[in-house]
Amino acid sequence: MDEVIIKLTKDVNLKDVILIEGLPGVGNVGKVALDHIVKTLEPEHFANIYSKHLPPQVLLDEEGITDLVSQKLYHYRKGSEDFVFLAGEYQGSSAEGQYELSYSLLEFLVKNYGVKRIFTLGGYGLGKMLETPRVLGAATSKDLVEIFKENGVVFSKGEPSNGIVGASGILLGLGKEFFGIDGGCLMGETSGYIVDAKSARNVLEILSKITGIEVDLKDLEIRSEETEELLTSLREAAEHEFTSEDEDLRYIG
Amino acid sequence: MDEVIIKLTKDVNLKDVILIEGLPGVGNVGKVALDHIVKTLEPEHFANIYSKHLPPQVLLDEEGITDLVSQKLYHYRKGSEDFVFLAGEYQGSSAEGQYELSYSLLEFLVKNYGVKRIFTLGGYGLGKMLETPRVLGAATSKDLVEIFKENGVVFSKGEPSNGIVGASGILLGLGKEFFGIDGGCLMGETSGYIVDAKSARNVLEILSKITGIEVDLKDLEIRSEETEELLTSLREAAEHEFTSEDEDLRYIG
Amino acid sequence: MDEVIIKLTKDVNLKDVILIEGLPGVGNVGKVALDHIVKTLEPEHFANIYSKHLPPQVLLDEEGITDLVSQKLYHYRKGSEDFVFLAGEYQGSSAEGQYELSYSLLEFLVKNYGVKRIFTLGGYGLGKMLETPRVLGAATSKDLVEIFKENGVVFSKGEPSNGIVGASGILLGLGKEFFGIDGGCLMGETSGYIVDAKSARNVLEILSKITGIEVDLKDLEIRSEETEELLTSLREAAEHEFTSEDEDLRYIG
Amino acid sequence: MDEVIIKLTKDVNLKDVILIEGLPGVGNVGKVALDHIVKTLEPEHFANIYSKHLPPQVLLDEEGITDLVSQKLYHYRKGSEDFVFLAGEYQGSSAEGQYELSYSLLEFLVKNYGVKRIFTLGGYGLGKMLETPRVLGAATSKDLVEIFKENGVVFSKGEPSNGIVGASGILLGLGKEFFGIDGGCLMGETSGYIVDAKSARNVLEILSKITGIEVDLKDLEIRSEETEELLTSLREAAEHEFTSEDEDLRYIG
Repeated sequence: MDEVIIKLTKDVNLKDVILIEGLPGVGNVGKVALDHIVKTLEPEHFANIYSKHLPPQVLLDEEGITDLVSQKLYHYRKGSEDFVFLAGEYQGSSAEGQYELSYSLLEFLVKNYGVKRIFTLGGYGLGKMLETPRVLGAATSKDLVEIFKENGVVFSKGEPSNGIVGASGILLGLGKEFFGIDGGCLMGETSGYIVDAKSARNVLEILSKITGIEVDLKDLEIRSEETEELLTSLREAAEHEFTSEDEDLRYIG
Repeated sequence: MDEVIIKLTKDVNLKDVILIEGLPGVGNVGKVALDHIVKTLEPEHFANIYSKHLPPQVLLDEEGITDLVSQKLYHYRKGSEDFVFLAGEYQGSSAEGQYELSYSLLEFLVKNYGVKRIFTLGGYGLGKMLETPRVLGAATSKDLVEIFKENGVVFSKGEPSNGIVGASGILLGLGKEFFGIDGGCLMGETSGYIVDAKSARNVLEILSKITGIEVDLKDLEIRSEETEELLTSLREAAEHEFTSEDEDLRYIG
Repeated sequence: MDEVIIKLTKDVNLKDVILIEGLPGVGNVGKVALDHIVKTLEPEHFANIYSKHLPPQVLLDEEGITDLVSQKLYHYRKGSEDFVFLAGEYQGSSAEGQYELSYSLLEFLVKNYGVKRIFTLGGYGLGKMLETPRVLGAATSKDLVEIFKENGVVFSKGEPSNGIVGASGILLGLGKEFFGIDGGCLMGETSGYIVDAKSARNVLEILSKITGIEVDLKDLEIRSEETEELLTSLREAAEHEFTSEDEDLRYIG
Repeated sequence: MDEVIIKLTKDVNLKDVILIEGLPGVGNVGKVALDHIVKTLEPEHFANIYSKHLPPQVLLDEEGITDLVSQKLYHYRKGSEDFVFLAGEYQGSSAEGQYELSYSLLEFLVKNYGVKRIFTLGGYGLGKMLETPRVLGAATSKDLVEIFKENGVVFSKGEPSNGIVGASGILLGLGKEFFGIDGGCLMGETSGYIVDAKSARNVLEILSKITGIEVDLKDLEIRSEETEELLTSLREAAEHEFTSEDEDLRYIG
């Protein structure tokens, strides 16, 4: 069995695509953001990516129909631009698998359509709750760093200190080194404790500005408010706990 | 050494086979069911599947004769139908190995005989003991879902929530995507704590109805009753324990 | 880099060799036995087996000279028989690696010299200390089982219950299935807690009878006695401890 | 994607190079030493080594520009000698990966330029703090052992008892067995608890003597003194703790 098999479900006629990735990761920020794009823009599903580097598993839809685990490609045209969205329930299940999946995808897209830019979406986990999460950035070129900054992306020396792990990182790295493609990563700050719709909303807002894709953020804003309420109640619970403890101590003392 | 080596032990003349799989898994439901078929129908053993993705191990028979770990294929003809049974002590030992084993088997069967349908047998672990375990289903097509339902298979939205992991899942997934074969999975509900003959019996009963294979369930029913007795005594022991604890507490109080 | 690289250090002219393996394992019985053969018979070292499936490591000799981790082949002629001994500090570091190493070795030996029989040496770990450890057997054919029995090897139904794991198992399994070679395994019973020279001595005694190789067991007997003394003192210490505890209890009572 | 991809960033004209490796390891001694060479000698960066056996990750520079994880090659000419330095943030992420990376590098260098000697730098972890860490050695030939000894390298029977693990080991082992290249390893003794600049300094001092490369050790000596101060304060803290405990005990007694 080949390492990675990309199977077209629809013939598409694309040129110099802009690839946007949002796979699972810290706080699932990238995945929530990309899944929201797919839900609201209803881009055309045109290919599945199967691989022995994905879990050996089928998922089931509501009717009990099987779906072999895959990553999925969608096409969306905006003006003269061809966007390709990469979504999925899983990243590659090993370091080698991660490389094989990202490399094969880029090779496929470059060979068949050309790729002119890559945007990857992810979360930056801080391990603590945040009032106003920022969107941090990284890019393959100074030009893109400038464009990111102009659109409100924060560049903070030494953050994230470990760089970017997984597809959001190596799609950029492999794209730059082996295919000569520029790209950048938008990382929404997140506690990492929950599926973070608020952070995803912030990422999408900036992605819209940069790419011109118009995404209706309403639904995500509702989920985002729910996220915020959840975080608030977690924070209050935590504070309350400490207070009670203090009271107990005082009581005991 | 090749990834997977399928070695014929007997020449067989098969056409458009129906593949039925039952390898180890949750509660060993699939394995118990399939091993029971092999024991009672005495199908013809015609091939062994060796692979570096199986444990590096030989098993010993009662006389101390070695048997290199393998999965085994059996042939059974019923009317004009050729059934192939896939049995074994082990599944592939990694995600990649699982894909290699399932893909190679399908490729071999399709190339040599043709495959018209796949049924996979497994357990659905609930982590708790059940009075009347159901048989849940999943399938690659709506037609098969209907056939399953007509034969008493339960389709329950969101169950199993993680889909189907291992050979029972990807034989269906790979069969559908790469070989155009329809198939379905029968999953017997089980606590997952024991080798569950009762659940296996239920699975076989439905498999018989769907495929027309007549399996003598007597032995399995005896084992199934033993399973039930074991479960009952476990349940009673658990209940007794709680009662005793309550009594103890009352005694102490 | 190739999976397995067998590098001749000396040209040898062998015919229909008898392969004897003794690599690390439970109680290191097989390794101690084979290393003793190499030490006393001084067979001719003629090849090293290198592989990415062995640890990425060099060992150092007493002078600080490096030796890339390898398995080693030795040749010994007794009458008209060519024996090849397989020794080493490590087994393959993964299931796949185990298969690659054993398969490549057999392929190399069969292609270049022919192989007429395989004997593998190992330990059977019982997890408890034994007064008189037996030597258990397994073989690829009934004929060999008979020969083993005649020479004092014990065949005990269901022992070892998991079969034989590692090179001692799959050299036999692969030899039988893919190269048509008969062979057997001698397993010395051992607690598995210590490097067990006593068990290795028993294995060698029987191997000598079966193969006609004469091995001076004196050194090993001394080590074996030391093993026994160690075991005795461990046993006494254990007993003493229990007694003391009893005394303590009585004292307290 | 190929196992290992070596990408030239500059055309270089080298002959019979001397390879010097310093990758992460115990106490990061080898890495600190080599990174110091690169910082002070400013050799010419001429190639990156990418591989699916490295972490799937990009690192970020101070401006947020991505850099796909790689090992890096530098060139430095001293008189008529061509030195190549191997640096990097990571070693191969599996045993197999380690072999692939080291083998591919040697193959590349031998094929394109020739390699006449290999020096690898590493740490020898002792698990305890040392007043005066020595530099231990290992080599592929007696000649090199002698040269090492003449330059103050210590050869101590049975140290390190496990040989040398990772690139520092197998570059020598593979170089000797498959490419006929001599080489040696310098191992600075270290506690292994900290990034050990003092040990790295000692290693570099000897490397300078052996190779004729002149490295300004000033900066490293400052870091080395800081290391020493840190170690001293750790030692004193430890002693103090024990003293306090004794006092406490006396106090209690």
